[in-house]
Amino acid sequence: MDNYMQVFQGTAFSSKSPKEIHILKDYLFCIHADGVIAKIVSPEDSGYQPLLDHYQGKPNFHRLADGQYFLPGFIDLHVHAPQWAQSGTALDIPLYDWLNTYTFPLESKFSDLDFAKKIYDDVVSTLLANGTTTALYFATVHKEASLLLAEICAGKGQRGLVGKVVMDDPGQNPEFYRDADTHTALVDTEEFIVAVQELAKSTKQGVYPVVTPRFIPSCTDEALKGLGELAAKYDAYVQSHCSESDWAHGYVQDRFQKNDAFALNDFGLLRDKSVMAHCNFLDDHDADLFAETGTAIAHCPISNAYFANSVIPIAHLHSKNVEIGLGSDISGGFSPSLYDNIRQAVISSRMLEDGVNTSLPASERGVPGSRITIHEAFYLATAGGGESLSLPIGRIEENNAWDVQVIDTKLPSAKLPIFNEDENLDDVFQKIMYLVRPEHIREVWVQGKRVHSR
Amino acid sequence: MDNYMQVFQGTAFSSKSPKEIHILKDYLFCIHADGVIAKIVSPEDSGYQPLLDHYQGKPNFHRLADGQYFLPGFIDLHVHAPQWAQSGTALDIPLYDWLNTYTFPLESKFSDLDFAKKIYDDVVSTLLANGTTTALYFATVHKEASLLLAEICAGKGQRGLVGKVVMDDPGQNPEFYRDADTHTALVDTEEFIVAVQELAKSTKQGVYPVVTPRFIPSCTDEALKGLGELAAKYDAYVQSHCSESDWAHGYVQDRFQKNDAFALNDFGLLRDKSVMAHCNFLDDHDADLFAETGTAIAHCPISNAYFANSVIPIAHLHSKNVEIGLGSDISGGFSPSLYDNIRQAVISSRMLEDGVNTSLPASERGVPGSRITIHEAFYLATAGGGESLSLPIGRIEENNAWDVQVIDTKLPSAKLPIFNEDENLDDVFQKIMYLVRPEHIREVWVQGKRVHSR
Ligand SMILES: [Zn+2]
Ligand SMILES: [Zn+2]
Repeated sequence: MDNYMQVFQGTAFSSKSPKEIHILKDYLFCIHADGVIAKIVSPEDSGYQPLLDHYQGKPNFHRLADGQYFLPGFIDLHVHAPQWAQSGTALDIPLYDWLNTYTFPLESKFSDLDFAKKIYDDVVSTLLANGTTTALYFATVHKEASLLLAEICAGKGQRGLVGKVVMDDPGQNPEFYRDADTHTALVDTEEFIVAVQELAKSTKQGVYPVVTPRFIPSCTDEALKGLGELAAKYDAYVQSHCSESDWAHGYVQDRFQKNDAFALNDFGLLRDKSVMAHCNFLDDHDADLFAETGTAIAHCPISNAYFANSVIPIAHLHSKNVEIGLGSDISGGFSPSLYDNIRQAVISSRMLEDGVNTSLPASERGVPGSRITIHEAFYLATAGGGESLSLPIGRIEENNAWDVQVIDTKLPSAKLPIFNEDENLDDVFQKIMYLVRPEHIREVWVQGKRVHSR
Repeated sequence: MDNYMQVFQGTAFSSKSPKEIHILKDYLFCIHADGVIAKIVSPEDSGYQPLLDHYQGKPNFHRLADGQYFLPGFIDLHVHAPQWAQSGTALDIPLYDWLNTYTFPLESKFSDLDFAKKIYDDVVSTLLANGTTTALYFATVHKEASLLLAEICAGKGQRGLVGKVVMDDPGQNPEFYRDADTHTALVDTEEFIVAVQELAKSTKQGVYPVVTPRFIPSCTDEALKGLGELAAKYDAYVQSHCSESDWAHGYVQDRFQKNDAFALNDFGLLRDKSVMAHCNFLDDHDADLFAETGTAIAHCPISNAYFANSVIPIAHLHSKNVEIGLGSDISGGFSPSLYDNIRQAVISSRMLEDGVNTSLPASERGVPGSRITIHEAFYLATAGGGESLSLPIGRIEENNAWDVQVIDTKLPSAKLPIFNEDENLDDVFQKIMYLVRPEHIREVWVQGKRVHSR
């Protein structure tokens, strides 16, 4: 019998495909020392009972209690870590004002490492407590504070992908908050990449540097070109904002006479390891380019309601084989929970399908075929995120990392409305998706290590 | 010095107007024996210190801890209490199928009082734990179980307004779930009204019977007429669904050659004590009729995304002086929390303003002027609900009931992102609105009595 680091017994939900979930009822999950799922064993399997007999009662055997379930840890593809300090405020103003009046002054304070530590400690812990096991972060322009965020992820056991933000154009960014100049922006980025790759060697779950031009309007051509070269040189992740709002989309068309997708691609910034936030205004050519290059979309449904002037057509983009995951977009989105974003992803898709304006006849109001189901939204938060990052995460299946949440549906203080002992497990899954709050998330594991419990 | 039942000290938020909140920093709140706020005293007031000296240290004096705040209890204007058992499931199908395949079979089970007690106990406790101090409930067609719901509200201290549902048309309702006949529907309703009015005498906070035709399609003309007469005879509350979806709106136009509002009014069902759920397809004449008759709208933003084919133009209807409150619409809406509905009310209004379809130019996409702020959404959940019900609730001000939630922003397990000791209180308010979850709600009081704590 193999010598596993941990063996878990319980019922798990995981995506089989974007529209279907796999329900693993009372399975055994055997975890290797490296934190990877080595073997998943069904109760019908002849190996089940011997395994159970061997591990049961040992300290590394964990059986879920009645009413508890495993879910894959969530993958948040778009988080502005510093903005956690202003989450929930100032959502009533346009993007441009929001950036200049609130967000840039806040981000500029991350030159102070004590301040940065306070916020970054809190946001990483908060995301873990919300079931987010992997997060793709924008930090700030500051190299040291960005490295600190990566160190905090490493220390708390979260799989953090962290970008030092580049915004070097003096004509577009305030003097109090931008890179000193283009050269410095590129040198700092390269030093940051090297430092995080070094840091990663001491972590089990991995931390990763991310080439991060804030968005095209913030950057000079020279910076964008240099960042594309650094991404290629280090085979690094890339993140940015892409075709988010009418304003941003129009700005890039004016500057380059093409859409964001093609402009970013010209600079070498669309790669298999690229994730672009929002992407509401992608046209079909842009989408094809995303699919060809392996570039993924970070769908941020809550934030989009405030700043993106529209609903992104997820069902359509999925049908064009673009990789899509989910992002909280703290603090354009107020919630640190991907559950909230799963719910909003479904709701927003319904609004796109049916339309919103009651003064139009039903036949002219919406865009038929736009809805996604709760199962698809769950896919975005898990398997879709893993595909977007080209990492073996987001599914509870063999050779994936053991990144899971343990959900308790029978918590005395907040029991889910499950009144039948033999309730259909797909209904249980839907109730979990729609009704779970952080207090139901009793444990969070990343790469075989428990990183949160309550 | 007056002899108050309770005196509270702390900071409270309450609506001053639909767009403005009143911040009462470190005030004293003095509660009469009847549970009504007798006096609110500012720290600048000369009577403050003597009051404090007199009550401080006594068992009936309560000072909020650092980081805690008072909010008015929420008023949920539309809850289908029996549907709590299916909350979060089956939201991917149209209204008509959802009713016949899931909802009516579930509701029919409430002929069993043991089953009813299990669900009703849980939904009332859950709403209290979510900060809802007053709820306007649809029960089921069953007189006994509906009375049981009112008794449970009475017992748990929630201000419950409860309706025995009428759905008497044999051509429109399944045989397994409808009133036996029109006469029985009306007799049962009258007996229910009398029984709840009797029950109310033994409660401090009040419970109220509600005349409840499910919606026009469920009812015969004779039943609607009889229910209007009962509402007048007993000066009772009335609730129903009004112009919710394209299908429902069209059905009433076919049957009566007029919109729901005018049809309901013809039967005497639009009164000052009437609350109509959804109302998405109200036209301006309908809205004027609502304003004239004092009929209120229960805005159900989450549910509307699934079943109402549109976003209701709340800003426009507010400008026409229609009374509007907020409803969870469990289980058309999945969430028992009005916080979730406050957030969705803002989000939906943004989607109506900006529009959803990216293939349209910005100028043709949305309906300008449609957004509401988080302050307005808070108004809907509190003061707007009180106005809709014509009850002195929903505001923390003198002569209102002491119906409050105590919010803890510094809970170790879920601290809100407030990092400055002297953070602006309007920002604190916004963070509470956007980020509070049930675990932050430490106490709930109704009519001067603590009915929930954790
Ligand atoms: Zn962003
Ligand atoms: Zn309803």
